[in-house]
Amino acid sequence: METEISKLGEFGLIDHLTKGIELKNPSSHRGIGDDAAVLKYPDTDVLVTTDLLLEGVHFDLTYVPLKHLGYKSAVVNFSDIYAMNGTPRQIVVSLGISSRFTVEHMEAFYDGLRLACEIYGVDLVGGDTSASRQGLVISITCIGDVEKDKAVFRNGAKDTDLICVSGDLGAAYMGLQLLEREKAASAGKPDFEPDFAGKEYLVERQLKPEARKDIIAELAKAGIKPTSMMDVSDGLSSELLHICKESDCGCRVYEDRTPIDYQTAVMAEELNMNLVTAAMNGGEDYELLFTVPLTDHEKVEKLPGIKVIGYITKPDLGCAMVTRDGQEMPLRAQGWNSLA
Amino acid sequence: METEISKLGEFGLIDHLTKGIELKNPSSHRGIGDDAAVLKYPDTDVLVTTDLLLEGVHFDLTYVPLKHLGYKSAVVNFSDIYAMNGTPRQIVVSLGISSRFTVEHMEAFYDGLRLACEIYGVDLVGGDTSASRQGLVISITCIGDVEKDKAVFRNGAKDTDLICVSGDLGAAYMGLQLLEREKAASAGKPDFEPDFAGKEYLVERQLKPEARKDIIAELAKAGIKPTSMMDVSDGLSSELLHICKESDCGCRVYEDRTPIDYQTAVMAEELNMNLVTAAMNGGEDYELLFTVPLTDHEKVEKLPGIKVIGYITKPDLGCAMVTRDGQEMPLRAQGWNSLA
Repeated sequence: METEISKLGEFGLIDHLTKGIELKNPSSHRGIGDDAAVLKYPDTDVLVTTDLLLEGVHFDLTYVPLKHLGYKSAVVNFSDIYAMNGTPRQIVVSLGISSRFTVEHMEAFYDGLRLACEIYGVDLVGGDTSASRQGLVISITCIGDVEKDKAVFRNGAKDTDLICVSGDLGAAYMGLQLLEREKAASAGKPDFEPDFAGKEYLVERQLKPEARKDIIAELAKAGIKPTSMMDVSDGLSSELLHICKESDCGCRVYEDRTPIDYQTAVMAEELNMNLVTAAMNGGEDYELLFTVPLTDHEKVEKLPGIKVIGYITKPDLGCAMVTRDGQEMPLRAQGWNSLA
Repeated sequence: METEISKLGEFGLIDHLTKGIELKNPSSHRGIGDDAAVLKYPDTDVLVTTDLLLEGVHFDLTYVPLKHLGYKSAVVNFSDIYAMNGTPRQIVVSLGISSRFTVEHMEAFYDGLRLACEIYGVDLVGGDTSASRQGLVISITCIGDVEKDKAVFRNGAKDTDLICVSGDLGAAYMGLQLLEREKAASAGKPDFEPDFAGKEYLVERQLKPEARKDIIAELAKAGIKPTSMMDVSDGLSSELLHICKESDCGCRVYEDRTPIDYQTAVMAEELNMNLVTAAMNGGEDYELLFTVPLTDHEKVEKLPGIKVIGYITKPDLGCAMVTRDGQEMPLRAQGWNSLA
């Protein structure tokens, strides 16, 4: 039994979806239900980030379950707040909903959203809901906090700093390729069963990414303050170029130091794709890329799940990857760019 | 000469549009160019509101110039912050842009956005830009401040409070009817010149609304703190019902006290539409609706541009309009509801 959204109307739908939502952060003073939410941030700096996700551009509902989409929509925003060395605290969620969606669809989306909020300790404090003639439109703004003057920017990397990255790269991109392949294979076959055996990690990285809250905590515990940081959403190459441009420096990263999961490598082989390109330019990894002073070398080497992949240079040396055979390949931003 | 957006790409377009943007508010610590903006609000409460505007649902580019659309997109958010008794300080702007838009189109949109920011003293501190397969998508989140514990909510109205509204009502709705009429008349006539003579105010109210910054300042100056407040975006009836529901009270408003501009009345006559319905349910007025204690009667009567239109009652009396002939008509939310 599916319920048409028109039965509830805009206000009814919002009431239904946000029923029972409680505010847990001390900074969340007032949430949903007024012209604006009221927050209190007397002792910290405030971080604000926003992400727009559009059906047909950022996601394909043929293979993305709405609950996963809700989860991912929230998490990609949290990732931006962690990338500033902060903690996400509140989100506001705007949805444009076309007529093919039912109340149950939106419940599934909100289930994912709420789960992400619960796991990451974030409060849903407001939003806007409207009809859309244009498929599903999701716009989330996340507010977070960071100790006064402890935000980490993109522009603080210095010559000789070590370049570090968390987790592994390219898996989400390979997951996308796999999902697209199975979608193509399923065309016209209603009983088609996609085959993800042995590739579960890739599918999970694409459909249900996590933000690296744990890395921020680890760094703080180890007393390491990165000199620059950002999250890897458009691909490592693109992000490295951002850091180097903003910090007015160059870099060298080593192909053989790039962290890649076994499943990613197998999938690249299977699809006859270049593994390094996938890892460097795939995007949607939501790992943290950061630089630390050379003096933190020992500290950072000890941290689990973090790999030193290269170092920062003077600007005139440019940005390059050192390949396994010792050649230098200039880094290029082939990251996902929907407007190019 | 029009420039295709693909020539610049996502990052190039953002750089181009946001070139030369300066931060003017002390609370705007870092703006565009990192994973998140950094704000400082040590001494005030923080307000957050968000609005989603979708082509084909909220605006029709046949008659809405992009510069006006940029202006209006920002102003409707500012209005929500004023409606909390606050001051807007920052916005983040997300845009989904379909392929028919050029760089020049987006420049026009940003011109309007920047003009609104300049006039209202707001800083543009971030956003997200993406391709859209689905027309223009605009999502703006506005952050503002309000003196500690001075935010005005919807739930503070009390029995015997006076109901006040700024400006006049129904003009934006009549402007929309006029623009739609001229659009229909122009169909298939490339040389068609729309006729807005004597109706300029209606067109302006629809295309270039203003937020009532001045009213908030006046109230503060007069030492009046409303017991409840919201902005009139969905129509006066709908907003009154919100306030009464949230405040657990009823209300009486007088038909003959409803502020209506002469042009609105003429247009309603011309279109053979019910004037009171237009004024009560038209929406997009962006005026402020608020309640004050009865003891503030003399103070509020003296303020220019504010009209007392009724009073708050005990909840069991319900919500009604008293017509010119003394009858009571229950208020109904016939406000604009894109999902109903």
